[in-house]
Amino acid sequence: MDFADHLIQAVRQRENPVLVGIDPRPEELPAGFLDRFPGDRPGVAAALRTFGCDVIDVVATLVPAVKFQSAFYEAYGPEGLAALHATVEYAKQKDLIVIFDGKRNDIGSTAEAYARAYLGKVPVGGAFEPSWHADAMTVNPYLGTDGVLPFVKIAAREQKGVFVLVKTSNMSAGEFQDLIANGRPIYRHVAAKLMNWATGHQGQSGYNLVGAVIGATYPREIEELRAALPGILFLIPGYGTQGASSRDIAGAFDENGLGALINNSRGITFAYERPPHRARFADHWQGAVEQAVRDMIEDLAANTPAGRLRVR
Amino acid sequence: MDFADHLIQAVRQRENPVLVGIDPRPEELPAGFLDRFPGDRPGVAAALRTFGCDVIDVVATLVPAVKFQSAFYEAYGPEGLAALHATVEYAKQKDLIVIFDGKRNDIGSTAEAYARAYLGKVPVGGAFEPSWHADAMTVNPYLGTDGVLPFVKIAAREQKGVFVLVKTSNMSAGEFQDLIANGRPIYRHVAAKLMNWATGHQGQSGYNLVGAVIGATYPREIEELRAALPGILFLIPGYGTQGASSRDIAGAFDENGLGALINNSRGITFAYERPPHRARFADHWQGAVEQAVRDMIEDLAANTPAGRLRVR
Repeated sequence: MDFADHLIQAVRQRENPVLVGIDPRPEELPAGFLDRFPGDRPGVAAALRTFGCDVIDVVATLVPAVKFQSAFYEAYGPEGLAALHATVEYAKQKDLIVIFDGKRNDIGSTAEAYARAYLGKVPVGGAFEPSWHADAMTVNPYLGTDGVLPFVKIAAREQKGVFVLVKTSNMSAGEFQDLIANGRPIYRHVAAKLMNWATGHQGQSGYNLVGAVIGATYPREIEELRAALPGILFLIPGYGTQGASSRDIAGAFDENGLGALINNSRGITFAYERPPHRARFADHWQGAVEQAVRDMIEDLAANTPAGRLRVR
Repeated sequence: MDFADHLIQAVRQRENPVLVGIDPRPEELPAGFLDRFPGDRPGVAAALRTFGCDVIDVVATLVPAVKFQSAFYEAYGPEGLAALHATVEYAKQKDLIVIFDGKRNDIGSTAEAYARAYLGKVPVGGAFEPSWHADAMTVNPYLGTDGVLPFVKIAAREQKGVFVLVKTSNMSAGEFQDLIANGRPIYRHVAAKLMNWATGHQGQSGYNLVGAVIGATYPREIEELRAALPGILFLIPGYGTQGASSRDIAGAFDENGLGALINNSRGITFAYERPPHRARFADHWQGAVEQAVRDMIEDLAANTPAGRLRVR
């Protein structure tokens, strides 16, 4: 099935657009968690894997998709990446859509290698087989069309998706992204090219396998880009820990409550150590994960068009 | 020792600024090379590792530094990354400076995780230890200052380096990088910020641990940026296979032949299959690697200020 159609179907089934981010910072793991594993590198890798799988056990029936932040696995070298690989497999077994968040980018033939790595297949012996089983990946557009199209081409062939950074959620996002050229900011130039890259890749849902990353922290730009990018799925980071509220992102959705995935990472996985869940769940971190997901689903349903996903 | 000082010393010792790029594309490995290994995933990974180490055996006494393109290792999953790890270790044993080319980028705390992964240390048990042993890494600046400074901060603490994409070597580089805002192109805005990021990080050589990636395919911009970025090391891709000549990159150097590393990847590692080396070295690919490196050193010495590195 086409990636966008698959994603829309999962969002409709779960009746929410929550994208749980799995960013395992060892220093934020629940008290005592690391102590269950050997105090060496394989031990830390096993802890990362176990933590990710434990999160998945809680969220798999609640949300449509998870996003893995590669940096926290790369931090532990090949052992860390083996943990990521195992956790991705586990998420796929649990019927979750998996987004690999690595913000990869390079010139054409190298971009193609990245795309084949995460979304496609590579030659092994006489055959081609997948290495990672991601459904979509994030891509940085600074190199322009010939650095992005290889990702789109492979994604299209493999029924996968690509999310291109347009307007990022961080404080300094505007330093280059908001500079005005020919009367409009750079991120709008990226958005215009994105519409070109997306041409011909629309699924039956009306949405496209080429999506856009747009920070929840920039509500005005979200509304503006929703109008400028019909049929483009938005991956919205920045809800929760980065300070954006459900009202800030209401403009990301279409009138049916579709068209956006709302990411929350630390605000869910490390909810046990943050208000309001700390008081109740300090000793039961998975309970905090579940409550944080349920609270987020309710918040989005109450304050954004995502409430229309509820069929009852 | 400070990264820039270390690099300058190595360039002076080898009397050339050649940066050998190791981008192991399985389909370009010499005839019969893959056949020496099992036809499964660990076999391909062993082939990637062996090929990289074989290249290092040839070039270690000739050039100051090697650059690993992460994509080609990521393509084979955790096994591929274990091969990269082993090859990096081998290069370090052979006293080569190692640049990890992964063009990483993310918001602050995640950027810090990437920097700690490749340049710094991570917590394991009660201690901190390195995961990868790169001396420098490439970084994409699209997210602005708070996406770049974590790399610079960790690099400074660990005596490592960071190369920021400014003007890339590909055909579409100009789509966003050349857009004019406030009277100058975006890549010049990036260059101006780069000078800020570099502040306070100059070594005794006069060069800085924050460097710039500028494509050999844009000679006019190289000259312009050399003037605009005093004390900034240039990493120049695009010589050879991408079409740029030594004359195109002459402007990257200062008057002493310092200030630039000139990368060549496929033109060296796969020289056996390309003219002019194919006729003589088709059956002896390591001979082709050595000859291609020696030819490149001669070409740069004859046609750029790098000739002044020769003390005899």
